Amino acid sequence: MTSSDDIPPRPSRRGFLAGAAGGLAAAVSGAAQAATATPPPAVPAAPADTEPFWGAHQAGIVTPQQSHCYFTAFDLTAKKRDEVVSLLQRWTAASARMTAGLTATALDLDPAQPATDSGEALGLKAARLTLTFGFGPGLFEKDGHDRYGLAARRPTALVDLPRFNGDQLQPERTGGDIAVQACADDPQIAFHAVRQLARLAYEAADIRWAQAGFVSEPGKQTPRNLMGFKDGTGNPDVDDPKATTKLIWSDDEGPDWMRGGSYLVARRIRIALEHWDRMKLAFQEQTIGRHKYSGAPLGLKDEYAPLNLEATDKDGNPVIPENAHVRLAAAATNDGAQLLRRGYSYNDGVNFTAERWPPWRQGMEYDAGLFFLAYQRDPRAAFIKIFERMSKFDMLNQFVTHTGGGIFACPGGAAEGEFVGQRLFQSV
Amino acid sequence: MTSSDDIPPRPSRRGFLAGAAGGLAAAVSGAAQAATATPPPAVPAAPADTEPFWGAHQAGIVTPQQSHCYFTAFDLTAKKRDEVVSLLQRWTAASARMTAGLTATALDLDPAQPATDSGEALGLKAARLTLTFGFGPGLFEKDGHDRYGLAARRPTALVDLPRFNGDQLQPERTGGDIAVQACADDPQIAFHAVRQLARLAYEAADIRWAQAGFVSEPGKQTPRNLMGFKDGTGNPDVDDPKATTKLIWSDDEGPDWMRGGSYLVARRIRIALEHWDRMKLAFQEQTIGRHKYSGAPLGLKDEYAPLNLEATDKDGNPVIPENAHVRLAAAATNDGAQLLRRGYSYNDGVNFTAERWPPWRQGMEYDAGLFFLAYQRDPRAAFIKIFERMSKFDMLNQFVTHTGGGIFACPGGAAEGEFVGQRLFQSV
Repeated sequence: MTSSDDIPPRPSRRGFLAGAAGGLAAAVSGAAQAATATPPPAVPAAPADTEPFWGAHQAGIVTPQQSHCYFTAFDLTAKKRDEVVSLLQRWTAASARMTAGLTATALDLDPAQPATDSGEALGLKAARLTLTFGFGPGLFEKDGHDRYGLAARRPTALVDLPRFNGDQLQPERTGGDIAVQACADDPQIAFHAVRQLARLAYEAADIRWAQAGFVSEPGKQTPRNLMGFKDGTGNPDVDDPKATTKLIWSDDEGPDWMRGGSYLVARRIRIALEHWDRMKLAFQEQTIGRHKYSGAPLGLKDEYAPLNLEATDKDGNPVIPENAHVRLAAAATNDGAQLLRRGYSYNDGVNFTAERWPPWRQGMEYDAGLFFLAYQRDPRAAFIKIFERMSKFDMLNQFVTHTGGGIFACPGGAAEGEFVGQRLFQSV
Repeated sequence: MTSSDDIPPRPSRRGFLAGAAGGLAAAVSGAAQAATATPPPAVPAAPADTEPFWGAHQAGIVTPQQSHCYFTAFDLTAKKRDEVVSLLQRWTAASARMTAGLTATALDLDPAQPATDSGEALGLKAARLTLTFGFGPGLFEKDGHDRYGLAARRPTALVDLPRFNGDQLQPERTGGDIAVQACADDPQIAFHAVRQLARLAYEAADIRWAQAGFVSEPGKQTPRNLMGFKDGTGNPDVDDPKATTKLIWSDDEGPDWMRGGSYLVARRIRIALEHWDRMKLAFQEQTIGRHKYSGAPLGLKDEYAPLNLEATDKDGNPVIPENAHVRLAAAATNDGAQLLRRGYSYNDGVNFTAERWPPWRQGMEYDAGLFFLAYQRDPRAAFIKIFERMSKFDMLNQFVTHTGGGIFACPGGAAEGEFVGQRLFQSV
């Protein structure tokens, strides 16, 4: 964030710390400041640690993954469509500023007003912040009410997720009318951004649930999840336009405002790490269908070796078990269905648990696991299709529990001057 | 962590991935591996991202602060003193390995055994991991029982913390017989380390509570806390042996095993950010006693300008209010008492709240704030002395609530070949 070193400690009258148009300079303006303010710094070059906000697609989907995420789902309390439009306009303006390393709004130094930015990101880098917005079913219709006159515009691909086998979704961690995925290489930057958006939403939207997550050294190698296995090896190649067009971006099969957008499925997946850690290495590998250390498919050595689901051992048994995770997740098992995983590990401390079977263990268990985030062109042909089978048969299910999440239609990107989702509201 | 690229995908017999003595190399040994293993890599130079584990002081106290922390308090379940000794021996050995970038124990590749390290740190850097151990009152005496014959060895400085004004400590977030502070520049590295220690503690200790935290770009500047203010400006200079000797390290006033050690007070402090964010800038600054953007004491411009508690305005009122946070925290207000703050922000999502006063707001509130960690030579002359007054009078108290924490005697550092706390057990 723009440094505030040159802000006078206590302005006697109203002044502003504003981003210079198109640049990143902090400039103290207002004649009343002249006596105490040092000259504004020269406009610096755009830092290398920013991700573009405007574009055909929203950032934060195919953007190289950042190391931290703070995901928040909001319930809209706005009564009228215009209030939603106004909220999205404020959010868009603030997002464009914050992703460029600025405060959420021009910083009002009036001591008699609440600060317009809570300030904890001042002096920090932009940390490749991206803010990605998604619309939940509740924007279009809530409890049978077409609150904003948008019900007819709901994309058919934005289905209500079915109840899957084993689901233990907690209402207070599930759903939401608008989701914001904040990703950055600094957790304070991600949380700061959402907090400012929440402040700009007073009277229009309330936070429904939130989840922080992290991933280590993304981009250097396939990250390992908390089970110790590499996670993401089989992801589509986001640098291949054929793959992204086919699998990630919505095109003319949906409404105009979703063109260039994508559908997000979020799932908060608790992993019974205590249980997992007591399993034999071979059992862990059979469960996943990959070798733990190399990440290679069972029986092979190269992480990126193609899965051979037909391979059998000398007794004729499949090398990759019928119920191994990778087999059930594979495109070949799901008529080519694939999604772009962009998940984060989460770690929310410990909770008390008492087991109801021998050895009736009691004690604390980690509230930790995977915050699964996946983007796709159509969830019916991707997450739902894959998880329908997986939730029934995956050997991994004895270690994982889905405790929350949601489905969101992330509109195409905004051009400078537009607001996120503008075409949805314009075309009504 | 040492890369596992050269580990064969599926060893047919038992093999080891062991750290070479005194070095960081991963070497696959065992004749049975010869057929499949590639040659071990050359011993790399000690990486720059490790902190020394052995020494006169434990690491993680005056070590330059890392960006992430995972703090865990354990309850001992061991029946006998020897089991506690054995636990500390296992923990010391594993800590020396992990802080050097190795797995917790030599990695057993036997597929018929649970993996000896859960694996999620493989391939990652050591990230300046430090592991700092502290002994709570329960090690010495629990519910009136001298479980391990150590009651007579309890340092007088390891008092039970008094109940302070406003305390809302939750038992499930408070206390513990042994604490482990894991700090690293990567949250996965910090959590990994504690998780391995917890595994090594099966049958001897259970996790009682845990807290993750973060701080942005430590070392570059005074970090801002979630209130948007710089936090830590007035810390003792850890490069000044006079200051550390006087304020941080226990000397011959305590037991031998505490020489070179320090006392840790941990407090989980929830901050009512929603409330704080609605306050006027001037009120925030009066509450803290510093300017928000510069960090300077009220009325001044330089963050590091000495506090002038005598300064008055033209009406004769103190420039720094009587109940401002910095005044109550200042050494001058507390007969020279000072402590080394090493806190982290925490962010555990949101919880539902309903206010019991106008405007009777209902909704979600952040479960976020400050995980306060402070080291000191004697808590009676530092934290307790300072907080006794602060808990009654600090203007900040309307925004903060202490919901958990503990007090721990962190013994002097271990020399190579010793285990952490060895002198406590030897001298009985």
